[in-house]
Formats: sequence, structure tokens, C-alpha cells
Amino acid sequence: MLYSTAAKGQPNGSVSLMPTPSHVRQGQGQFKVDSNFTVGLEGYKDARLELARKRFLKALSRQTGIPYHLEALEGTPTLVVKTSAASKDIQSVGEDESYHLEVTQTNATISAPSPLGAMHGLQTFLQLVAISPDGFAAPVVTIDDAPRFAWRGLMIDAGRHFQPMDVIRRNIDGMEAVKLNVFHWHLSEDQGFRAESNVYPLLTGKGSNGDFYTQAEMKEIVEYARDRGIRVVPEFDMPCHTTSWFVGYPDLASGTGPYQIQTRWGVFDPAMDPSRESTFAFIDKFIGEMTTIFPDEYFHVGGDECNGKEWDANPGLKSFMQKHQLKDNAALQSYFSGRVQKIVAGHHRIMVGWDEVLQPNTPKDVVIQSWRGPKGLAASARQGNRTILSNGYYIDLHQSAEEHYLTDPLGGDAANLSAEEKTRVMGGEAAMWSEFTTSEIIDSRIWPRTAAIAERLWSPQDVRDVESMYARMNAVSAKLEAYGLTHRSVEPLMLQRMSGDKDPKYLAVLASVVQPPRGYDRESLKQYDWHSPLNHLVDAVPPESETAREFSLLVKALVGGNASQEQWQTAKDWLTRWRDNDAKLQPTLKSSEITAELSPLSQTVSQVSTIGLRALDDLQNHHAADASATQSDLQTLKAAEKPQAVLRNMIVAPVEALVQAAGKQ
Amino acid sequence: MLYSTAAKGQPNGSVSLMPTPSHVRQGQGQFKVDSNFTVGLEGYKDARLELARKRFLKALSRQTGIPYHLEALEGTPTLVVKTSAASKDIQSVGEDESYHLEVTQTNATISAPSPLGAMHGLQTFLQLVAISPDGFAAPVVTIDDAPRFAWRGLMIDAGRHFQPMDVIRRNIDGMEAVKLNVFHWHLSEDQGFRAESNVYPLLTGKGSNGDFYTQAEMKEIVEYARDRGIRVVPEFDMPCHTTSWFVGYPDLASGTGPYQIQTRWGVFDPAMDPSRESTFAFIDKFIGEMTTIFPDEYFHVGGDECNGKEWDANPGLKSFMQKHQLKDNAALQSYFSGRVQKIVAGHHRIMVGWDEVLQPNTPKDVVIQSWRGPKGLAASARQGNRTILSNGYYIDLHQSAEEHYLTDPLGGDAANLSAEEKTRVMGGEAAMWSEFTTSEIIDSRIWPRTAAIAERLWSPQDVRDVESMYARMNAVSAKLEAYGLTHRSVEPLMLQRMSGDKDPKYLAVLASVVQPPRGYDRESLKQYDWHSPLNHLVDAVPPESETAREFSLLVKALVGGNASQEQWQTAKDWLTRWRDNDAKLQPTLKSSEITAELSPLSQTVSQVSTIGLRALDDLQNHHAADASATQSDLQTLKAAEKPQAVLRNMIVAPVEALVQAAGKQ
Repeated sequence: MLYSTAAKGQPNGSVSLMPTPSHVRQGQGQFKVDSNFTVGLEGYKDARLELARKRFLKALSRQTGIPYHLEALEGTPTLVVKTSAASKDIQSVGEDESYHLEVTQTNATISAPSPLGAMHGLQTFLQLVAISPDGFAAPVVTIDDAPRFAWRGLMIDAGRHFQPMDVIRRNIDGMEAVKLNVFHWHLSEDQGFRAESNVYPLLTGKGSNGDFYTQAEMKEIVEYARDRGIRVVPEFDMPCHTTSWFVGYPDLASGTGPYQIQTRWGVFDPAMDPSRESTFAFIDKFIGEMTTIFPDEYFHVGGDECNGKEWDANPGLKSFMQKHQLKDNAALQSYFSGRVQKIVAGHHRIMVGWDEVLQPNTPKDVVIQSWRGPKGLAASARQGNRTILSNGYYIDLHQSAEEHYLTDPLGGDAANLSAEEKTRVMGGEAAMWSEFTTSEIIDSRIWPRTAAIAERLWSPQDVRDVESMYARMNAVSAKLEAYGLTHRSVEPLMLQRMSGDKDPKYLAVLASVVQPPRGYDRESLKQYDWHSPLNHLVDAVPPESETAREFSLLVKALVGGNASQEQWQTAKDWLTRWRDNDAKLQPTLKSSEITAELSPLSQTVSQVSTIGLRALDDLQNHHAADASATQSDLQTLKAAEKPQAVLRNMIVAPVEALVQAAGKQ
Repeated sequence: MLYSTAAKGQPNGSVSLMPTPSHVRQGQGQFKVDSNFTVGLEGYKDARLELARKRFLKALSRQTGIPYHLEALEGTPTLVVKTSAASKDIQSVGEDESYHLEVTQTNATISAPSPLGAMHGLQTFLQLVAISPDGFAAPVVTIDDAPRFAWRGLMIDAGRHFQPMDVIRRNIDGMEAVKLNVFHWHLSEDQGFRAESNVYPLLTGKGSNGDFYTQAEMKEIVEYARDRGIRVVPEFDMPCHTTSWFVGYPDLASGTGPYQIQTRWGVFDPAMDPSRESTFAFIDKFIGEMTTIFPDEYFHVGGDECNGKEWDANPGLKSFMQKHQLKDNAALQSYFSGRVQKIVAGHHRIMVGWDEVLQPNTPKDVVIQSWRGPKGLAASARQGNRTILSNGYYIDLHQSAEEHYLTDPLGGDAANLSAEEKTRVMGGEAAMWSEFTTSEIIDSRIWPRTAAIAERLWSPQDVRDVESMYARMNAVSAKLEAYGLTHRSVEPLMLQRMSGDKDPKYLAVLASVVQPPRGYDRESLKQYDWHSPLNHLVDAVPPESETAREFSLLVKALVGGNASQEQWQTAKDWLTRWRDNDAKLQPTLKSSEITAELSPLSQTVSQVSTIGLRALDDLQNHHAADASATQSDLQTLKAAEKPQAVLRNMIVAPVEALVQAAGKQ
């Protein structure tokens, strides 16, 4: 039996890949991956491909537990990687990343025009390998694959919370696994300057708390990423988000200083002074130095969130603006951006900036990263600027994988772009801002949801089946842990730590049905700063509750009237478990200052479950619920929507659906 | 209330430390460890103490989730570390490792004569910190502590299965946490030579599969260990276990070769040729080179398990032995050891060897590591040689923590030594041989049981309360995961991998009641070699089943007639769960080649549980069990003792106890 996807995502029983390849044709039988499995290179060879081969074998060993030795082979390899030619020394946007993968019952072949495609093919093969009654094996399959977008990124903010080298490395490993190809490194912020400069040593000397990347470390990351087919685009945000620059170099600022590193979150007043030539001389020298470390053709200069207050307060700037006919702060920033763009171009780089950089006179080669709303991307493309989507891909905001997944760079306003305008949409980037993300929990904020974004950016536009996405994302999530990512293993460790209990099973039940607040709600619920320990339940739980999602699907089936007997029973079992959990959890909560705050939330979960059980019973027995009881329940549920202990109770919405359905009978 | 331990291990409710300090006096109240906590050094200071301070703060951050910044402090620190003087440049045996730790409600002080004690004090403080209703805190306490033995080691065999650098590093971290102070690095074996030699490059060039440590890496480990107060003793095993030497340098061998690296386990024939001067010239040059990497005063030359076959088969050796009046192979090896001892001494090192090295004429400064049986240690001490115990501490043999814990270097034969002879017992070493240990599972073979051995070697001899040990070992085990060790997290990942199921909960139930075979039994149950994937259930489960141990204790209480109603119910719940697990697990087992073999074992667990439930019922209801039914049950249980799928069923013994008790009513 041959099965050919129309690229809608893979149905059950077929191969589980993420991102979905552009074309998959599954055959019959499988290719056994046992101790005799070997990999060889053919055609063009280089050190990077050899490293990729070794990395592949190590990953395969981790994935199977079968020891593969790295030395050169004798005999015919069972997986042959045929590469036609070298890729560019400095990886460029739009290089051919395609590959062809052929798996038969006896061997496998990856053919690719360049090492980039060869490496993608190896990652696809790793995803194909699964345990079977006949041992580990890959299904017989033919895959032709190439990315939809050339720019598929992950941004990590190392400014607000510093992220150590091993965090960066393992996340680049994760990026490789899901075929992302741009690591956007946000290196300076109000709260810290993270890139060592030899020209301006006080940038980190005074502008960081000692946590920064040395030049050798940044070069190591560039090399590490290149080995994995990933470009590194550095970002130095200016003219705002620049407090940390000013601690050591106050003359750069529009204000009078002195400056201290910010230890709170938010938008701050300090801004560079665009009226002084010395400012641009500094930027020129600094960018010149950084381009010796970051060879990528693109250079990100930020440009977001200037509140203009420091500019307004500076009388010298007022006269400067009059002299240069700059009518407002937007015009002043536009003047600044124009000067910086020339500096960047002088260093043979293409400037990238956030939305705010786009002004009517912005040079056409400037790339706009759209974050503010759904319209910025299309506006840039219409104006003739190439653009990258991040609005909708802010993974720090604790949205569902589904929401991210269904956000398409060519959806919304962009759907109406002309064909030529559409070519200006280069792709997108998941953005990991780090106000609420230490190095301990960052993996769980990035993964697995970023895999869904990676699929959006790689796979054909009509691959949009949400259930298939979740099934495959969960499969890839398990494999990512074998790459050293800790997105799943961190939660139990944190629950143990906060409870002081080595098996906090009732706390885990509560944890399974709650989520962090969405969007920017968290900041309104409690005061946080740089010193706030992120060691509470809100920090430990994943951004999306898989249990609550499954329960919502179950309720949909129950309310839809097409549920099986088993589904009714499962819903009852779950609600019973959640109802009864409080009595067991409650006595343990007060032994820890961190868990004590969970007491009301645990009670609410129990209360909501009690209501859910009653509605479930009414619904199953076609017993018309009393109208006033229904109203009272809905009021209780409404109140339960309010976050407690900075956590959302994710069973409220499905229970509301149950109550409403029971009331309508 | 003041509580003073008579060093018997800590009772419930008091501080939980491992190893137990020699003297603990607990006071009232606690010292809060929050965002204001800081650490400062006083008195003697050096770079190593500064690194220890930073490492301590990182560990404390991991343990609490509170961010601690590493920069220098302003103001009075809340924890002061007062060190009197430097320790030796090259750490020596018997240096003062003592410390005094004082925790009050407002601050804490560690005082130590040298950095070694200061670092031990910091680790003790880390263990004191626990979550409380008032946040993280350390109890008010006064501790005076010093080790019982000067030599407290962990040996890792990197020869049979190579262990990468990160495995070595994180295990040294674990050693520091439990105050071990000798890392014994077994660097050459029949299956691989793991230490790069510039003088003899073929040792790794032909004698390894490419997996070895460079000289820079070995130096890095020496430095890394020294930073943590840990000596590194290298071992190059000779004259046997030397096949890997001979692949590149066959002239060293007594046989005619050619040689290949061994890929099977066991004792092999190849042995160095003691009749040629060139052999000793080689060893001299090689040891000379290695002493430039390993500065420790002690150098281990192995000496174990010569079967003599290659010597017997060499006619030249026969005449050599006659000429030198060497009456047998033991004498020949003694001659070899004598020569090697002179070489080692020539390089200003003290020779260490295994049991077999001890002969009547062995120089008195040779240190004997006792492994073969309980008598070797005492024999060495009587003969005037200093000695280290490893017999009883072979952690690859899957014995219980209790067995290791109750093995005392001055117990058994050694108890009868004279006071002077006892001073020759330097301590002991846990020995991690690696036939059945890849880098993936080695942590779970070493930890947490090695913490029990560490306590035996550090704490007063009368600290022997097994239940207290288990409680504290489990507490320290959880903390060790925060050091990057993977001894607990690896099991769920492996169960997922072998089953292809992201939540294999029924497999986990089976896993919780089985153990790997004890001692050398595993090799008789199935054929293994270097290529055998260690990815089965036997590799995934810990060496000791905590669940089975708890069940055994429960059964002891039930049979003893002093069980609570709750204990009866728990036993019933557990047995019911194990009985019913098979029906749920069985259908899933056949989807994987690796789990398919577990089918009979799962059935047996169910069958044993059924018998257990019947006996439990009889016992609780004082119903005399039918004699023939009892006999039949005991026969069934006898059969169930036999390992299945290379695994021991650990509920058989406690169920036998139940059946016997029920039968005797």
C-alpha cells in the first residue's frame, strides 16, 4: 500500500515527522536500525558533514540505546548521504536546503545539493526511527522536502536573564532537530549588556553583573550554529533599551545620568542621544568590532519601545530637532535609524530592526521584524521592505501551541499582498523574552511549542491540522529531551524542591490542570523584578496544560453527544480525581512557604470539579438541571476564572461548557 | 531544646545529613536563606576558595531557585567562611579536612584549618538548607566534623565502556557533595586504552576505538578534582588486562600476537613479558610521561587477574623463570611487580596495586587495594602494608545500599587487628566496573548507593542505623540530581524509549518491583559483549528497588503482628496493583522487541501478587491456610525466584514470608 500525503500533516499510523515534509510517500515494510547500522558520506565531503555524521550517530545512540562507534567504516554503509557541492562559507538567506530521503527495507539514502539539505535529511531520518516488534526501525518511505520560508528563527533574550553557554548550545541543538536556521541573539538590554567588547570594556564591565559572553564564547556559538546549518544574527538594541550601555558610557545618553542597570521590568526612559556625532562614532566602532565576531550578512539593531521621555527632557535635543526639521520623536528616531543604517551598511551588513524602524523614508534593504500587531508585516512588504514575523510567535506570553501554529506569515493582512510583495516575507521567528525565564526554566518556555512554529515556517501552508500537530509535537518533545533539553524533566524537580517532598504526587495533580497567565497578565498580578525567585508553581508548569487540553476535547465530545461510554467514564474519573485531590494536598501545602499560597487554588479546583461532576451526571442521565442551580454554578465558575497564586485554572472553561450543556437540555 | 547526636545517625525531625558528621548539636529555630543571603571569605584566601564560593552559590541557586549573583559583596556576609591556612599544592593523604559549622538564627560561620575543610563545610551547609513554612532555611546547629578515614574513593572504569568528560565531571561533583576525596581513574583495559600518550601514540591510536582522553582533558580533570578537594589516582593495569597495549606494541606481550582489542567481557590470556628489559624500559618511559599529568603521590598499577596462560605457553619465559628461581606464575608476577615498584618509586610515586600484588617480599610502602575477599585487607595490614578496602564496595554488582553500608573497613577480620595494624587501613573505594554500564546509565549505578559508602568512610564507626541511612540517602539522592547527575531521570526516559510510549505507566509499575541480577549472575543469564545495547529494562531500573524494600519492611510489620490498619490496607493496595498490572501491560509489550521479553515476568509478578493477596487475607483474618495450598504456593514462589528477562522479581521474598506466616497460624 502506498500512501501519499497531500501535505496535510500525517494521519495516524503513518510516519510522525515535525516539521511535516513537503512530500511524503510511505511504502511497505521497514528498515531495521540495529547494531549493524552505519552511515557513510558520498560526493562532496567536508569537516562539517563529518561532524554532522558523528552527531547523528550520537543522537541515534541516545535515541535507541544502541552503541554506535564513530570511527571510519569498512564496507558499504547502510545509510548513504550524497552531497553534491559545498554550501557557502558564510551561510546566506535562501541557500538551497532541500533534500531527498529514500528508505527501503535494506538501506537508506539522503541526497542533497548542499550540506544544509544533507543535515536536514539526517534529522528527518532520526525522527523516523521508532521501536517496533522487530526492534528499532524506520518505515519504508520516500521524502522530498524543502522549506517554505528561508528565515526560520528563534530569538533568545540573554539581556534580562542571562542564559549560560550550555543553555544556548542545547537550544541550538533543539533548533537543528526541527530545522530552524536562524539563532537571533538578543545581547543587550536595560538590565544587562552581555557581549564582551574589547573596544568598550565598560559595556560589560559596568553594564552587567559579571554575566556576559566573552568574544571567544560568541565565536564558539557562531561556529556551533554553523555546524548545524544555523545562522547567528546578533541584536544590539538601540536607541532605547540601552540603560546598560550608559552605566559605563553615560555620554551616549540623552539624559544626565548617572545610570544604574535596571533591575525592574518594563519600558524605561533612557535613550541614546542622536544629536551628538560622538554617539554615532561609538556605534560605528562598536558595530565594526562585533562584525569581526558575527559574520552573518544581517545585523539587528533593535529600535523598539522608545518612550521619548529622556528626549523630551533634553533642551539641546529640542533645538537639534528644530534645526533638522524633525517634527516629533518618531522623526528623531527615524533620523537615528537612518544614521545607524549607514553605519551597518558601511560594515557590509544588512540592517534588521523591529517594527518601529519602519518609516516612510526607510531604505528598502532594511529588514523589518514585525512584533507589534498583525498589520506591521504586510505594511512593510507593501512599502518594499523585506520582513520577518514575530507577532503571534512570542513564546514568553504562554499562548497555546495551536495559536502559534495557526499564525501564518502569509495569513491575515498578508494574505492580500501581491505575489511580489509576498516574496518580501522572509519567514518568522519565535521570540523568547526573558523577564520570567531563568536558565533553569527557559527550555520549558521554548519547547515543545517552538516545534509547532518551526513547522509553520517550514511546511506547506495548508499543513494546518491541529490535532495532528499536537500528536507530532508531543512525539518530537520526547525526542528533544534526548538532545539534553530539560523542558520536561524540570517540572518534577521543581515540584520536589518547592514542596520538600521527593514524590509530591498531589501537587503534581494540581500542577497538571493549571497554566501561567496569558500575555502580559502576570505583571499585573504580582510585583516582579530581577531578584524575584522564579521557583513557584507558575514557573514550574508548562505554558500549556496537556491534561486540560485533553479534557476540553473530551468535554467537546460529551457535549456534542457523540461520546463513547469510555469517554464518559474517563471524564468522571478525572473530575473525581481533581475533586478529591484537595483533601490530600491541602495538609501538605503549609509546610512550605512556596506551596502555602496554593491553598485557595487547590480548593477552587476541587469546587469546580464538584460542579463538573454534577453537570456530567445531569448530562449523562438527561436530567434537566435546575435553572437557578445552573446560574449559581456559572457564577461560581466565573469567579474561578480569576487567577489564584498567579495561575489560571484550566478546567474552568470545559466545566462551564458542561454546565451550560446540562442546563440547556 | 538542644539535641546532641551520639553520632548514631539522625533521628526523624532533626537535620538530615549524609555523611553524618562526627558531632551535631541542634538548637532552636532556623536561619532563613532568602535573596539577602551572601557568602564571604575570611582569613586565608585563594583562587580555589573563591571558586568554591561561586560553586556553592550556584548550587544553592539550583537548590532553592533563588538567584544568587556571583560578584563580590558589599556589607557583612550572612555566611562567613574562615580558613586558617593553605592546604598543600598537591593534596596529600591525611591532610586536615576538619571543619566547624555554626548556624544561628541570624548568620552562619564555617571555620576550618584549610580549604579542604572549608569546602566540606560548604557542602554540609547545602545539605542543611530545606524548604520550610518560612521559606528556605537551615536549622540552628553546631557541627564539628572530620573524616574517619583519609582515603575515601570512587573508582570509575573508563576502559571497558568509555566514559566521556561530562560523565567524569558530574560524578566528581557528586563525590564532592558526599565528601569523597579520591577519584581513582581506571584508564586501561583489555577493551581499550583511554589515556593519550605522546611517547607511545599507538596505545590509543590502535588500542582504542577512538574514544580516549587527551592529555589536556586528563589535566583538566586533575584540576577540576583538585578544585573540589579530590585527588586523582590514575590506574594503568599491568601485567594483565593489557590487550589494548599490545595492539600497537605487540613486543610488550608474552604471546606472539597479533592482538586485537577485546570486545567480550572476562579474563583474557594476554600478559606483559617480564623477561625482557624492553618491557620495563617501556613502562618506565610511560609512567614517567603519565606522572607529568597526574601529580598525585600515589600511582596505581593494577596487577589483578593474571591467568598465566600466555606465560605458560612461552618457552622463553620457562627458562627465564628457572634462571631467576621463580617457581611459579605468582613468583613471576611478584618479580614483575617488584620491578614496576622500583620504576614507580623512581618517579617519586607510591605504588598501589590490587590484592594479587601482595607477596611475602612486597615492599612495605606499596598500598594494597583489597577486592578478592574479606580477608585481604587484614592480611595486608598484618604484613605491614597500608591498604584500601574495595571488597564489599563493588557497586557494579547490584547489591543493596545496606550491604555496602554495613561493610566496614575495620569490620570482619580487620576488627582483630592491633591498633598499629589498624592505622594501616587507609579507607576504601567504591568500584564502578563498566561491563554493564554505558555513559547513559553509569550515574544510576553509582548513585545514590555510593553516598552510603561515603558515609561509612567518613562517619564514626558506630553510625550504623540502616533505616536512617536509607532516609538520608534518598534525601541526598534528590539533591544530587541538581548537580547534573542523571541517576533518577534516566529511568523514565529509557522506559519511554523501549516502549515507544510517552507515558508507559504500567511498564513503570513492573519496573518498580524488579532488580538486575546480583553479583556476576547476569553473565550466566545471557551472552553480552561490547556491542550489546544496554537499553533493556534490566539496564533502566536502579540496582535496588525502593518499592520492594518498603514492601519487605511492611511485610515484616504485618508478620510481626504489630501492623496498623493502614499498613494492612497499603499492603493490599500494592499487591492488588501489581496483580492487576499485567492485564494492562501485557497488550502493550509486544509492540516493542525490547519489551516483548517482559511478558512472562509480568505474568509472574501478577501470579506472585495473587498468592500474596490470599496469604494477606488469611493472615489478617487469622484464617489457617491449608497446608497443601501453602506448599503449592511456596513451590510456585520458588520457581518465581528464577530471573526472567535477566531480572529478579523482588516481591517474591516478602510474599514467601507472608505465605509462611499464614501457614504457621
